[in-house]
Amino acid sequence: MNVEFINPFLEAVVKVVKTMAFTEPKAGKPSLRQKNAPSRGDVTGIVGLTGPVKGSFALSFSEPAILEIVTNMFGEDFLEVNSEVEDAVGELSNMVCGDARRLLEEKGHSFQASIPTVISGKGHNISHAIPGPSVVIPFTISQGATFFVEASFEEA
Amino acid sequence: MNVEFINPFLEAVVKVVKTMAFTEPKAGKPSLRQKNAPSRGDVTGIVGLTGPVKGSFALSFSEPAILEIVTNMFGEDFLEVNSEVEDAVGELSNMVCGDARRLLEEKGHSFQASIPTVISGKGHNISHAIPGPSVVIPFTISQGATFFVEASFEEA
Repeated sequence: MNVEFINPFLEAVVKVVKTMAFTEPKAGKPSLRQKNAPSRGDVTGIVGLTGPVKGSFALSFSEPAILEIVTNMFGEDFLEVNSEVEDAVGELSNMVCGDARRLLEEKGHSFQASIPTVISGKGHNISHAIPGPSVVIPFTISQGATFFVEASFEEA
Repeated sequence: MNVEFINPFLEAVVKVVKTMAFTEPKAGKPSLRQKNAPSRGDVTGIVGLTGPVKGSFALSFSEPAILEIVTNMFGEDFLEVNSEVEDAVGELSNMVCGDARRLLEEKGHSFQASIPTVISGKGHNISHAIPGPSVVIPFTISQGATFFVEASFEEA
Protein backbone atom coordinates (compact mmCIF):
# COMPACT_ATOMS: atom_id res chain seq x y z
CA MET A 1 0.00 0.00 0.00
CA ASN A 2 1.63 3.19 -1.24
CA VAL A 3 0.91 6.12 1.11
CA GLU A 4 2.00 8.46 -1.65
CA PHE A 5 -1.18 7.42 -3.48
CA ILE A 6 -3.44 8.04 -0.47
CA ASN A 7 -2.43 11.52 0.65
CA PRO A 8 -3.64 13.35 -2.47
CA PHE A 9 -7.15 11.99 -1.85
CA LEU A 10 -7.15 13.33 1.70
CA GLU A 11 -5.87 16.69 0.61
CA ALA A 12 -8.54 16.80 -2.10
CA VAL A 13 -11.39 15.81 0.26
CA VAL A 14 -10.59 18.63 2.66
CA LYS A 15 -10.35 21.14 -0.16
CA VAL A 16 -13.52 20.02 -1.97
CA VAL A 17 -15.70 19.87 1.17
CA LYS A 18 -14.38 23.21 2.35
CA THR A 19 -14.99 24.86 -1.02
CA MET A 20 -18.38 23.33 -1.68
CA ALA A 21 -19.89 23.19 1.81
CA PHE A 22 -18.07 25.99 3.62
CA THR A 23 -17.04 23.71 6.46
CA GLU A 24 -13.55 22.43 7.09
CA PRO A 25 -13.49 18.71 7.78
CA LYS A 26 -11.07 17.60 10.48
CA ALA A 27 -9.19 14.41 9.68
CA GLY A 28 -9.01 11.79 12.43
CA LYS A 29 -6.44 9.07 12.82
CA PRO A 30 -6.00 6.93 9.70
CA SER A 31 -6.29 3.23 10.26
CA LEU A 32 -5.72 0.11 8.27
CA ARG A 33 -9.05 -1.63 7.97
CA GLN A 34 -8.55 -5.35 7.91
CA LYS A 35 -10.33 -7.07 5.09
CA ASN A 36 -13.48 -8.09 6.88
CA ALA A 37 -13.80 -5.49 9.60
CA PRO A 38 -17.03 -3.58 9.09
CA SER A 39 -16.94 -0.11 7.62
CA ARG A 40 -20.41 1.36 7.48
CA GLY A 41 -21.90 4.35 5.74
CA ASP A 42 -25.34 5.63 4.78
CA VAL A 43 -24.44 7.13 1.38
CA THR A 44 -21.23 6.24 -0.43
CA GLY A 45 -19.64 7.39 -3.66
CA ILE A 46 -17.31 4.84 -5.23
CA VAL A 47 -14.83 5.58 -7.98
CA GLY A 48 -12.68 2.93 -9.63
CA LEU A 49 -9.11 3.85 -10.46
CA THR A 50 -6.76 2.44 -13.08
CA GLY A 51 -3.18 3.43 -13.80
CA PRO A 52 0.20 2.23 -12.53
CA VAL A 53 -1.80 -0.02 -10.16
CA LYS A 54 -5.53 -0.66 -9.82
CA GLY A 55 -7.36 1.03 -7.01
CA SER A 56 -10.69 2.02 -5.63
CA PHE A 57 -11.81 5.08 -3.72
CA ALA A 58 -14.87 5.40 -1.49
CA LEU A 59 -16.22 8.57 0.08
CA SER A 60 -18.75 7.42 2.63
CA PHE A 61 -21.04 9.69 4.63
CA SER A 62 -23.19 9.18 7.67
CA GLU A 63 -26.65 10.61 7.04
CA PRO A 64 -26.14 13.61 9.39
CA ALA A 65 -22.85 14.49 7.68
CA ILE A 66 -24.16 14.46 4.12
CA LEU A 67 -27.35 16.31 5.08
CA GLU A 68 -25.27 19.05 6.69
CA ILE A 69 -23.00 19.21 3.64
CA VAL A 70 -25.76 19.40 1.01
CA THR A 71 -27.73 21.87 3.13
CA ASN A 72 -24.65 24.11 3.06
CA MET A 73 -23.95 23.43 -0.63
CA PHE A 74 -27.43 24.32 -1.84
CA GLY A 75 -28.47 26.80 0.85
CA GLU A 76 -31.69 24.93 1.58
CA ASP A 77 -32.59 22.35 4.19
CA PHE A 78 -32.20 18.70 3.31
CA LEU A 79 -33.84 16.39 5.82
CA GLU A 80 -33.44 13.03 4.13
CA VAL A 81 -31.23 11.25 1.63
CA ASN A 82 -33.02 11.71 -1.69
CA SER A 83 -31.88 11.58 -5.30
CA GLU A 84 -30.52 15.13 -5.15
CA VAL A 85 -28.35 14.11 -2.22
CA GLU A 86 -27.17 11.01 -4.12
CA ASP A 87 -26.29 13.20 -7.10
CA ALA A 88 -24.33 15.52 -4.83
CA VAL A 89 -22.35 12.54 -3.47
CA GLY A 90 -21.55 11.47 -7.05
CA GLU A 91 -20.43 14.98 -7.87
CA LEU A 92 -18.32 15.35 -4.70
CA SER A 93 -16.66 11.98 -5.40
CA ASN A 94 -15.90 13.09 -8.95
CA MET A 95 -14.41 16.37 -7.79
CA VAL A 96 -12.25 14.73 -5.12
CA CYS A 97 -10.92 12.17 -7.60
CA GLY A 98 -10.31 14.84 -10.22
CA ASP A 99 -8.33 16.93 -7.80
CA ALA A 100 -6.43 13.95 -6.37
CA ARG A 101 -5.54 12.76 -9.86
CA ARG A 102 -4.14 16.18 -10.67
CA LEU A 103 -1.95 16.00 -7.54
CA LEU A 104 -0.85 12.46 -8.43
CA GLU A 105 -0.05 13.55 -11.97
CA GLU A 106 2.27 16.22 -10.56
CA LYS A 107 4.17 13.43 -8.82
CA GLY A 108 4.38 11.44 -12.06
CA HIS A 109 1.53 8.96 -11.37
CA SER A 110 -1.13 9.01 -14.03
CA PHE A 111 -4.45 7.50 -12.89
CA GLN A 112 -7.72 7.30 -14.76
CA ALA A 113 -11.06 7.41 -12.92
CA SER A 114 -14.30 5.59 -13.71
CA ILE A 115 -17.84 6.96 -13.52
CA PRO A 116 -18.77 7.21 -9.83
CA THR A 117 -21.37 4.81 -8.49
CA VAL A 118 -23.45 5.99 -5.54
CA ILE A 119 -24.91 3.61 -2.99
CA SER A 120 -27.48 4.65 -0.44
CA GLY A 121 -28.99 2.53 2.31
CA LYS A 122 -28.71 2.84 6.09
CA GLY A 123 -25.51 1.30 7.45
CA HIS A 124 -24.34 -0.54 4.36
CA ASN A 125 -21.03 -2.33 4.60
CA ILE A 126 -18.17 -1.54 2.22
CA SER A 127 -15.32 -3.86 1.32
CA HIS A 128 -12.68 -3.92 -1.35
CA ALA A 129 -11.72 -7.03 -3.25
CA ILE A 130 -8.01 -6.98 -2.49
CA PRO A 131 -6.10 -9.34 -0.26
CA GLY A 132 -4.65 -6.68 2.07
CA PRO A 133 -6.09 -3.98 4.29
CA SER A 134 -7.59 -0.68 3.12
CA VAL A 135 -6.69 2.70 4.55
CA VAL A 136 -9.63 4.40 6.26
CA ILE A 137 -9.51 8.02 7.30
CA PRO A 138 -12.37 9.36 9.41
CA PHE A 139 -13.40 13.02 9.18
CA THR A 140 -15.59 15.16 11.40
CA ILE A 141 -17.43 18.28 10.34
CA SER A 142 -18.71 21.20 12.37
CA GLN A 143 -21.71 19.55 14.04
CA GLY A 144 -19.65 16.47 14.93
CA ALA A 145 -21.09 14.44 12.06
CA THR A 146 -18.72 11.99 10.48
CA PHE A 147 -17.72 10.70 7.10
CA PHE A 148 -14.79 8.66 5.94
CA VAL A 149 -12.50 8.13 3.03
CA GLU A 150 -11.38 4.67 2.15
CA ALA A 151 -8.72 4.02 -0.44
CA SER A 152 -7.30 0.74 -1.66
CA PHE A 153 -4.53 0.11 -4.11
CA GLU A 154 -3.01 -3.10 -5.32
CA GLU A 155 0.60 -3.62 -4.47
CA ALA A 156 2.68 -2.45 -7.44
CA MET B 1 -25.05 4.45 -24.74
CA ASN B 2 -23.16 1.94 -26.85
CA VAL B 3 -24.89 -1.46 -26.77
CA GLU B 4 -21.71 -2.97 -28.16
CA PHE B 5 -20.13 -2.23 -24.77
CA ILE B 6 -22.97 -3.84 -22.79
CA ASN B 7 -23.40 -7.21 -24.48
CA PRO B 8 -19.98 -8.62 -23.53
CA PHE B 9 -20.86 -8.11 -19.85
CA LEU B 10 -24.08 -10.08 -20.25
CA GLU B 11 -22.34 -12.86 -22.10
CA ALA B 12 -19.67 -12.95 -19.39
CA VAL B 13 -22.19 -13.01 -16.51
CA VAL B 14 -23.99 -16.03 -17.92
CA LYS B 15 -20.73 -17.86 -18.53
CA VAL B 16 -19.19 -17.06 -15.14
CA VAL B 17 -22.30 -17.94 -13.09
CA LYS B 18 -22.81 -21.13 -15.08
CA THR B 19 -19.19 -22.18 -14.66
CA MET B 20 -18.84 -21.25 -11.00
CA ALA B 21 -22.30 -22.06 -9.64
CA PHE B 22 -23.54 -24.77 -12.02
CA THR B 23 -26.75 -22.91 -12.71
CA GLU B 24 -27.61 -21.11 -15.92
CA PRO B 25 -29.00 -17.64 -15.32
CA LYS B 26 -31.86 -16.62 -17.59
CA ALA B 27 -31.71 -13.03 -18.79
CA GLY B 28 -34.91 -11.00 -18.58
CA LYS B 29 -35.80 -7.97 -20.61
CA PRO B 30 -33.16 -5.21 -20.49
CA SER B 31 -34.44 -1.81 -19.53
CA LEU B 32 -33.09 1.68 -19.41
CA ARG B 33 -33.18 2.78 -15.83
CA GLN B 34 -33.80 6.47 -15.62
CA LYS B 35 -31.38 8.31 -13.42
CA ASN B 36 -33.33 8.32 -10.21
CA ALA B 37 -35.51 5.24 -10.50
CA PRO B 38 -34.66 2.88 -7.67
CA SER B 39 -32.55 -0.17 -8.34
CA ARG B 40 -32.14 -2.24 -5.22
CA GLY B 41 -29.86 -5.06 -4.25
CA ASP B 42 -28.66 -6.79 -1.08
CA VAL B 43 -25.03 -7.41 -2.12
CA THR B 44 -23.42 -5.58 -5.01
CA GLY B 45 -20.01 -5.78 -6.65
CA ILE B 46 -18.96 -2.56 -8.39
CA VAL B 47 -16.12 -2.26 -10.85
CA GLY B 48 -15.00 1.01 -12.39
CA LEU B 49 -13.99 0.99 -16.04
CA THR B 50 -11.71 3.30 -17.95
CA GLY B 51 -10.80 3.20 -21.62
CA PRO B 52 -12.27 4.76 -24.76
CA VAL B 53 -15.03 6.08 -22.47
CA LYS B 54 -15.50 5.92 -18.71
CA GLY B 55 -17.93 3.40 -17.34
CA SER B 56 -19.11 1.52 -14.32
CA PHE B 57 -20.38 -2.00 -13.88
CA ALA B 58 -22.52 -3.33 -11.05
CA LEU B 59 -23.43 -6.96 -10.38
CA SER B 60 -26.17 -6.82 -7.78
CA PHE B 61 -27.70 -9.83 -6.06
CA SER B 62 -30.78 -10.33 -3.99
CA GLU B 63 -29.91 -12.26 -0.83
CA PRO B 64 -31.62 -15.50 -2.00
CA ALA B 65 -29.75 -15.38 -5.33
CA ILE B 66 -26.28 -14.93 -3.88
CA LEU B 67 -26.87 -17.51 -1.14
CA GLU B 68 -27.90 -20.05 -3.77
CA ILE B 69 -24.87 -19.19 -5.92
CA VAL B 70 -22.26 -19.41 -3.13
CA THR B 71 -23.87 -22.56 -1.75
CA ASN B 72 -23.35 -24.10 -5.20
CA MET B 73 -19.87 -22.63 -5.60
CA PHE B 74 -18.52 -23.92 -2.31
CA GLY B 75 -20.68 -27.02 -1.88
CA GLU B 76 -21.77 -25.98 1.61
CA ASP B 77 -24.86 -24.17 2.87
CA PHE B 78 -24.68 -20.42 3.23
CA LEU B 79 -27.61 -19.00 5.18
CA GLU B 80 -26.60 -15.36 5.48
CA VAL B 81 -24.49 -12.74 3.75
CA ASN B 82 -21.15 -12.88 5.57
CA SER B 83 -17.63 -11.87 4.62
CA GLU B 84 -17.07 -15.04 2.60
CA VAL B 85 -20.14 -14.20 0.56
CA GLU B 86 -18.89 -10.63 0.07
CA ASP B 87 -15.53 -11.99 -1.08
CA ALA B 88 -17.29 -14.27 -3.55
CA VAL B 89 -19.20 -11.28 -4.97
CA GLY B 90 -15.90 -9.41 -5.42
CA GLU B 91 -14.41 -12.43 -7.14
CA LEU B 92 -17.43 -12.97 -9.41
CA SER B 93 -17.40 -9.27 -10.37
CA ASN B 94 -13.70 -9.53 -11.19
CA MET B 95 -14.21 -12.61 -13.31
CA VAL B 96 -17.13 -11.12 -15.23
CA CYS B 97 -15.20 -7.92 -15.96
CA GLY B 98 -12.11 -9.87 -16.96
CA ASP B 99 -14.07 -11.97 -19.40
CA ALA B 100 -16.05 -8.99 -20.76
CA ARG B 101 -12.84 -7.01 -21.26
CA ARG B 102 -11.39 -9.88 -23.26
CA LEU B 103 -14.50 -9.87 -25.50
CA LEU B 104 -14.32 -6.07 -25.86
CA GLU B 105 -10.63 -6.30 -26.71
CA GLU B 106 -11.49 -8.69 -29.55
CA LYS B 107 -13.74 -5.94 -30.95
CA GLY B 108 -10.96 -3.38 -30.65
CA HIS B 109 -12.10 -1.70 -27.42
CA SER B 110 -9.48 -1.75 -24.70
CA PHE B 111 -10.90 -1.15 -21.21
CA GLN B 112 -9.11 -1.24 -17.87
CA ALA B 113 -10.89 -2.35 -14.70
CA SER B 114 -10.49 -1.08 -11.14
CA ILE B 115 -10.42 -3.11 -7.93
CA PRO B 116 -14.00 -4.24 -7.21
CA THR B 117 -15.79 -2.70 -4.26
CA VAL B 118 -18.45 -4.80 -2.56
CA ILE B 119 -21.43 -3.27 -0.78
CA SER B 120 -23.75 -5.25 1.42
CA GLY B 121 -26.88 -4.03 3.18
CA LYS B 122 -30.51 -5.00 2.70
CA GLY B 123 -32.13 -3.15 -0.19
CA HIS B 124 -29.46 -0.58 -0.86
CA ASN B 125 -30.02 1.74 -3.79
CA ILE B 126 -27.53 2.00 -6.64
CA SER B 127 -27.09 4.97 -8.95
CA HIS B 128 -24.45 6.06 -11.42
CA ALA B 129 -23.19 9.59 -11.70
CA ILE B 130 -23.91 10.10 -15.37
CA PRO B 131 -26.56 12.33 -16.90
CA GLY B 132 -28.28 9.62 -18.95
CA PRO B 133 -29.97 6.33 -18.13
CA SER B 134 -28.20 3.07 -17.22
CA VAL B 135 -28.94 -0.28 -18.80
CA VAL B 136 -30.30 -2.81 -16.30
CA ILE B 137 -30.61 -6.48 -17.16
CA PRO B 138 -32.42 -8.75 -14.69
CA PHE B 139 -31.48 -12.41 -14.36
CA THR B 140 -33.25 -15.32 -12.72
CA ILE B 141 -31.60 -18.50 -11.47
CA SER B 142 -33.04 -21.93 -10.86
CA GLN B 143 -35.02 -21.25 -7.68
CA GLY B 144 -36.47 -18.05 -9.11
CA ALA B 145 -34.07 -15.84 -7.20
CA THR B 146 -33.00 -12.70 -9.01
CA PHE B 147 -29.92 -10.63 -9.62
CA PHE B 148 -29.17 -7.87 -12.06
CA VAL B 149 -26.40 -6.37 -14.07
CA GLU B 150 -26.22 -2.64 -14.46
CA ALA B 151 -23.80 -1.00 -16.85
CA SER B 152 -23.23 2.67 -17.56
CA PHE B 153 -20.95 4.28 -20.05
CA GLU B 154 -20.37 7.89 -20.90
CA GLU B 155 -21.30 8.91 -24.39
CA ALA B 156 -18.17 8.77 -26.55
